[in-house]
Amino acid sequence: MTVTTSAPHPPLPTTTDADRAVQLLDRSRALVRPALTEAVGRLHPWVGEMAAYSFGWREVSGAPAAPGTAAGGKGLRQALAVLGAKAAGAPAGAGVSAAVAVELVHTFSLLHDDIMDGDATRRGRPTVWKAYGTGPAVLAGDALFALAVETLASAPGNDIPSAVRHLSTALNDLVSGQADDLLFESRPWTGPEAVGPDEYRAMAENKTGALLGCAAALGAVVAGAPATTVTALDRAGRHLGVAFQVIDDLLGIWGDPAVTGKPVHADLRRRKKTFPVLASLDTPAAARPLARLLGGAEELDDTTARRAAAVIEEAGGRSAALAEAHRHIAHVHACLDSLPTASHAADDLRALLAFLVRREM
Amino acid sequence: MTVTTSAPHPPLPTTTDADRAVQLLDRSRALVRPALTEAVGRLHPWVGEMAAYSFGWREVSGAPAAPGTAAGGKGLRQALAVLGAKAAGAPAGAGVSAAVAVELVHTFSLLHDDIMDGDATRRGRPTVWKAYGTGPAVLAGDALFALAVETLASAPGNDIPSAVRHLSTALNDLVSGQADDLLFESRPWTGPEAVGPDEYRAMAENKTGALLGCAAALGAVVAGAPATTVTALDRAGRHLGVAFQVIDDLLGIWGDPAVTGKPVHADLRRRKKTFPVLASLDTPAAARPLARLLGGAEELDDTTARRAAAVIEEAGGRSAALAEAHRHIAHVHACLDSLPTASHAADDLRALLAFLVRREM
Repeated sequence: MTVTTSAPHPPLPTTTDADRAVQLLDRSRALVRPALTEAVGRLHPWVGEMAAYSFGWREVSGAPAAPGTAAGGKGLRQALAVLGAKAAGAPAGAGVSAAVAVELVHTFSLLHDDIMDGDATRRGRPTVWKAYGTGPAVLAGDALFALAVETLASAPGNDIPSAVRHLSTALNDLVSGQADDLLFESRPWTGPEAVGPDEYRAMAENKTGALLGCAAALGAVVAGAPATTVTALDRAGRHLGVAFQVIDDLLGIWGDPAVTGKPVHADLRRRKKTFPVLASLDTPAAARPLARLLGGAEELDDTTARRAAAVIEEAGGRSAALAEAHRHIAHVHACLDSLPTASHAADDLRALLAFLVRREM
Repeated sequence: MTVTTSAPHPPLPTTTDADRAVQLLDRSRALVRPALTEAVGRLHPWVGEMAAYSFGWREVSGAPAAPGTAAGGKGLRQALAVLGAKAAGAPAGAGVSAAVAVELVHTFSLLHDDIMDGDATRRGRPTVWKAYGTGPAVLAGDALFALAVETLASAPGNDIPSAVRHLSTALNDLVSGQADDLLFESRPWTGPEAVGPDEYRAMAENKTGALLGCAAALGAVVAGAPATTVTALDRAGRHLGVAFQVIDDLLGIWGDPAVTGKPVHADLRRRKKTFPVLASLDTPAAARPLARLLGGAEELDDTTARRAAAVIEEAGGRSAALAEAHRHIAHVHACLDSLPTASHAADDLRALLAFLVRREM
């Protein structure tokens, strides 16, 4: 993706950085997996089967998933929890209960969001509601949610009530973000009821940032970190979430279908209120033609989607979104720089950040 | 309902007992309402609107509910939490955070269960998924769940980690009970895969008893009660739940439609695997004809439902269910008798029990 903005660009990750990030993700998954497997094993067997499917461990038949399947995701949240504990000066293992809790909550939210958004596939496989039915998918999500709370409340470690409060605050924020995202759909493109970029930022922080911030903060809380460390990690994760969401929006319009797995202009075809669109609507000259192109209810055809993409680019929506992403990434770096001790964990977090952002962009 | 069993019958509640029970429920609702309203007020406004509808405070339009509407339920769980605190020797107010948490969890479970069971009405009004859509109802349930955990984790009081563990255990049990209940539907009526009465008891204890037990126990935990008190109250609630479920099954077959609001033989028409049916299937002479009557997938017609009810009654399914309910009620009394100090709160709980059981039967 070409940089069309004057915002400072994060340095390209060196091979060493990328290796370090991949190793961090691999090591965290390996460290957390036994505790996560044990927790899921305590679920009702039917519910546990759906959970194992959503973690990418099993197929719908119950057979083990093909080796090397990517259905389980990178495990970013568990890595953040482990690094949060290390940022508190504790060994990585001190963050495992927090890592299990945030992975369970993340999977719960994917299950329920897929129902609400009507999404039929995720990571190349049918979503849980599509494979098992809506009712069972609601139940499986509830079970993962309850298991996350139980895991954290039963964990060894410091200040468990504070950890549970952090997790439930993130959950409330997740719900608020999802509620706003659903409500955005029926809001007009222009006029006093239109969605502004500030509302978008709040939605993205809640929907994507709250759990990333919670992951890193929770690892630090259970490891007994001081409040300044916890707050800095939480804020870093929240900015990272907004950056990810905006980058996702850019890919949803201009991403390479071979990489994203979605058709070109996918988010425009679905008339999604993404950041580049909202930023363009703030430009008076583009607002009227864009609202006309995106108005209506049917999926956009190729020509209209292509024209809308061109109007957005011309109005500066693409560069504004890139600048927005860079701004939040700069905030993440500032939060990491503010950590009380310049620790090895902060370097790990920087390596992870560079790798993720490059991978996404 | 006529008692057709030799099981000891609980004494008829005196007018004083019934008055005392109604006052207890009213006073608990009045005591808990401000904190519950404050908690719901912290939700995302759209989600809060759905919550207010499910509590019976508002109509779908957002207008206040007609005065005297019963849509909010009796508030049994909040009363149990308040009495749990009193059983620990604390003032009623000490149980308010526990009461708010269990009411929120109860409402969450109604919202999600109605989706899973496809129920279109509850307490004479459209269910939340019917009124607002499935996705929004999933989200509102999640929000109430998260709010319950947050309320408890932020509460003043003793041993909050233990309180959160109690709540999450009850949530896990709720999910297991609902999972079993959903799976019972596709199990055969006879043979090695048939549902046995013991499995039914476990399902009913999880689905209905766990949260009643948790309500009373949680009130005691936050009020600093000793473990013996907490355990006795938890067990009392669990037995109460099984008794309620079995009584509900009896009403679902032989209840007066004018009282239950459901057609006569409603649960037989829907081929539900209720306790009277399962108990009859344990009788070899009745098993085959009953399995033949209830086999198939369509709703039963009047004649078949009437014949099935007669077979069940003749096979002793009705009296076995009554005996089962009485047995669990006797256990509730034994648990209350075992409370370390013969307190005023135990008498209140007995009055409440007598009132509820009479009202149901």
